[in-house]
Formats: sequence, C-alpha cells, structure tokens
Amino acid sequence: MRKIEHIGIAVKNLDNSNTLFAKLFGEPHYKIEDVLTEGVKTSFFQVGPNKIELLEATNPDSPIAKFIEKKGEGIHHIAFDVEDIEAEISRLKAEGFTVLNETPKKGADNKIVCFLHPKSTNGVLVELCQELG
Amino acid sequence: MRKIEHIGIAVKNLDNSNTLFAKLFGEPHYKIEDVLTEGVKTSFFQVGPNKIELLEATNPDSPIAKFIEKKGEGIHHIAFDVEDIEAEISRLKAEGFTVLNETPKKGADNKIVCFLHPKSTNGVLVELCQELG
Repeated sequence: MRKIEHIGIAVKNLDNSNTLFAKLFGEPHYKIEDVLTEGVKTSFFQVGPNKIELLEATNPDSPIAKFIEKKGEGIHHIAFDVEDIEAEISRLKAEGFTVLNETPKKGADNKIVCFLHPKSTNGVLVELCQELG
Repeated sequence: MRKIEHIGIAVKNLDNSNTLFAKLFGEPHYKIEDVLTEGVKTSFFQVGPNKIELLEATNPDSPIAKFIEKKGEGIHHIAFDVEDIEAEISRLKAEGFTVLNETPKKGADNKIVCFLHPKSTNGVLVELCQELG
C-alpha cells in the first residue's frame, strides 16, 4: 500500500458539508461525482498527496444512508492506494481478511476498488483502490 | 493543511492489533509510544507519506476507553499536518470551528497538537499537528 488515497466521510447534506470543509481546508472541493451503483453523490477535496471524499446518500437503501442512520455523520472508510489490486486481494485473503469484492468494482474518481469487511479489520472499513490507466 | 499526517484507530488490545495491521500493510509498526497525559499506548505504521496510529486505553477514564465503550473499535480521528498550528487555530476559530485546545498541547510522535470539536466538523474528530523542530 502506497499511501492513504482518501478518507470517506458520510454526510447528510453535501452542499452544507462542502461549505464547511472548504472552510476547514481553506480551499473548495475540486469535483462532484455521482456513483449511481452505490447510491451516493460525492465531492473531493485535495490535501497534499491525499484526498477527502464526502458522501451523501441519494437513496434510502444506500450504504451511506444506513451508516448515518446507525452511527450518525462521520468517518466512513479509509482507502489505500495500491499498485496491483488483484495481487493485494490475493495477499490479504491469504492473510485471513474478509474481502467483500473478489473482483474489483468500478469506484469514484477513475478507480477500481475493493472493500475489506470491518469485522476482519478492527471495525475499520478499508478500501483498496487502483487508479485506472 | 499539507497532508493527512495520520489516522487514529481505537483498539482494545494493541498487541493483537499490531499483528493484524502488520498483515494488512505487509510491514510491522515502527514504534510504540505511551502518551501518559491521554491515558493511551500507541503504535505507528508508515504508509508512504502517511501514518496509522493505533490507540489502546491504559486507564478506564481515557478518551479511547470511552470511545470504545460507546462506538466499539474503529477510526477515532484524522490528523492533518500543519506548518503553523497557532495560525491555523486562529484561522479556524474565525471560521466558526470549536477549538478544544486554544494552546496546542504535546502529543505523540514529537508533535504539538490541537483538536477541533466533532460537533463543528460533521462528526469528525479533527486533530491539527505540527512537528516540533
């Protein structure tokens, strides 16, 4: 794993949170992206080599809607940048982690991604992501 | 803010989690540090330009003990590296954020740190940290 690619934060209202996080970072978000397959609308902020992704649910069945219902707004996941996601999936399965996507799926921000089940990672939802060429 | 300095993760048993996260990253932690003032024992993992800090409570009044009691193990805070923490505190107060340490305090890993109240930051506990020269 090469760096923290981004931290995902679940928010109730993307517009309000975009204003809030622009004040926090002293810079506005640099893009908005809908991820239809996940039922989320996202925005991205750059902080040096890392990003912050804000996630708002666009339907009540979205994992983000369920997360907020259960835990409230807050940090949802950590995503690590990997060079070869297939190799990392194999390695982590062999180490005993529970991989939620045996085949990487298309994520936001031109990435293929895979999640690890938080039960196998101390309650932390971990995302692996590989930039598409 | 220059980068994500580290992500803090609350764990019940540091030894067990050190083993788990060494498997996740493919590399062991590079140091252990007691922060007596916070009632925590910490370990650090390097992931490229970023770090992961695991935190175990060393007494039942520690903020980490209370966090785990309420929410279980998981992501506790995001720390951002700043060049001038006093200037950032002034800027963020002026923007309406609730600063928990008007005067930065000594943190782990040779830093002075300041936390922002999660009620002012969408449920996210934000730490600012400046490396001591």
